[in-house]
Amino acid sequence: MKVDYEALRKQAIEMLEARGVTLTDIANITYEIQKTYYDDLTLEVCLEHVNNVLMKREVINAVVTGITLDILAEKGHVEEPLRSILMNDYSLYGIDEVLAYSIVNVYGSIGLTNFGYIDKLKVGIIGEIDRVGKRDDKCNTFLDDIVGAIAASSASRIAHTR
Amino acid sequence: MKVDYEALRKQAIEMLEARGVTLTDIANITYEIQKTYYDDLTLEVCLEHVNNVLMKREVINAVVTGITLDILAEKGHVEEPLRSILMNDYSLYGIDEVLAYSIVNVYGSIGLTNFGYIDKLKVGIIGEIDRVGKRDDKCNTFLDDIVGAIAASSASRIAHTR
Amino acid sequence: MKVDYEALRKQAIEMLEARGVTLTDIANITYEIQKTYYDDLTLEVCLEHVNNVLMKREVINAVVTGITLDILAEKGHVEEPLRSILMNDYSLYGIDEVLAYSIVNVYGSIGLTNFGYIDKLKVGIIGEIDRVGKRDDKCNTFLDDIVGAIAASSASRIAHTR
Amino acid sequence: MKVDYEALRKQAIEMLEARGVTLTDIANITYEIQKTYYDDLTLEVCLEHVNNVLMKREVINAVVTGITLDILAEKGHVEEPLRSILMNDYSLYGIDEVLAYSIVNVYGSIGLTNFGYIDKLKVGIIGEIDRVGKRDDKCNTFLDDIVGAIAASSASRIAHTR
Repeated sequence: MKVDYEALRKQAIEMLEARGVTLTDIANITYEIQKTYYDDLTLEVCLEHVNNVLMKREVINAVVTGITLDILAEKGHVEEPLRSILMNDYSLYGIDEVLAYSIVNVYGSIGLTNFGYIDKLKVGIIGEIDRVGKRDDKCNTFLDDIVGAIAASSASRIAHTR
Repeated sequence: MKVDYEALRKQAIEMLEARGVTLTDIANITYEIQKTYYDDLTLEVCLEHVNNVLMKREVINAVVTGITLDILAEKGHVEEPLRSILMNDYSLYGIDEVLAYSIVNVYGSIGLTNFGYIDKLKVGIIGEIDRVGKRDDKCNTFLDDIVGAIAASSASRIAHTR
Repeated sequence: MKVDYEALRKQAIEMLEARGVTLTDIANITYEIQKTYYDDLTLEVCLEHVNNVLMKREVINAVVTGITLDILAEKGHVEEPLRSILMNDYSLYGIDEVLAYSIVNVYGSIGLTNFGYIDKLKVGIIGEIDRVGKRDDKCNTFLDDIVGAIAASSASRIAHTR
Repeated sequence: MKVDYEALRKQAIEMLEARGVTLTDIANITYEIQKTYYDDLTLEVCLEHVNNVLMKREVINAVVTGITLDILAEKGHVEEPLRSILMNDYSLYGIDEVLAYSIVNVYGSIGLTNFGYIDKLKVGIIGEIDRVGKRDDKCNTFLDDIVGAIAASSASRIAHTR
């Protein structure tokens, strides 16, 4: 079997956008948490790193799988009680963090700290994602962690290339 | 939100059985890879450890999520190309191993070796799971890794309690 | 070979204390980050969970190994440039986060967020550990991450037992 | 602080060689486990991938840290009982697998299976490393896992580039 990862990469980005998240939104998180460390950092540079992170197969696979689970929970294709666990972003579920960690780890463990910080303080669009996810008909359980993980990985990538 | 994990535990076991895997099948893998190390090891003892591993919330969540993805791929509820990736157990997907690792890790990194060995040599029922998964209408992409991970975790648990 | 883990557990606690960190200091971090979620949470309860986290073999092994590396770097038994990497808590090193993650993961991925938050905001004694570590003759590269990881794991343990 | 990772990379390779492991030995493991999957695979190609894996900072950091711990245990700079745990490659220690996993994960979770297989069957030089490590004055507790992890990562890298 051959998978066209360039096509799947585009699909991953379209899925993020259809769920309300642009790559610039993600780059903004990276910029927000890194600007104090690098005087000359720009949003453009952050966006470039976000784009590069999204070229990695591991990242693309995690994005597509996580958002698919969010959508299938919304559509009611997931059995109870997993559906309710997903719809309510149940705090002891943890598989959302597992997928996030598989993204972060591609750029090494140094991204763990940034991921946790972004997730806890709901930096940038993460707050909005969580608010929308609280609506009865919406599920963003994987989306917030995936977006936080891409932003944290982009921060790691910046650190590794300087 | 409160989740009844005793009920979800039973559901996880029923999902495994509905996919053709009993807890005794899993205990058999553990017995197979550990019998040379412990003269007095029995299948009953292995089964007890498998049962205990399946009481951990992290394990239950991973089992239910993974098998759900296999089933939804079979039913056609997953979009292409993810559906084909899952139906063909595409070797560069990796999210199946990510879930497996989240199971193994609850009993520490010592389980990694056993997981890899079981997965590669297709010990016990793993071979049968993979054969069934190759049928056009069947998807066992997550199932084989989940079963291998529970068996490897049970082996770790035996080691930790001796 | 048999290892007396009850003795090694005591040694791990003594090593933490010799480096300036009591279990109460760690419990304080857990209390700080969890008090808003549980009205009836007390420092005593947090301390009990910290004690329980420190009974896990994986945790004890990580604590003893990490602090040993800090001490050996201080004593000059580590070759350059690894010695300087450790003495300066070089941000791209990452093995300190790797050990921390092996602690956090025993209680599942839900601890990742708390670990990152504690590490980034330097909650409680973490700030003091980092200040001391900046002295020319001191190395706390592993210590801060280990302490943060035990505190985050204790928070996960509280969540899992409620 | 700036670390010259090109110099540290060379040091990591020298440390491996001083412990009896050449990059060709590692490439041989990769070749051994991958030759049945790719008809045109050569040892030269495997060696190229091993070299590339050893350019990653995460990998270099893990190699240098792990071998340093082996050496310091041999020299008696590590306190008991950690020294005995390391000298005897105690099976419940697990920090050696933790470091190995940090290497494997840079190329995604697909490497886990190969790592476990190599480790369990002691493919190629791993058997020799383990035999030497059993001598009273020698410690190869981290070395065997590090070598297995680099070989498994190289196999993942081959899979990702085809």
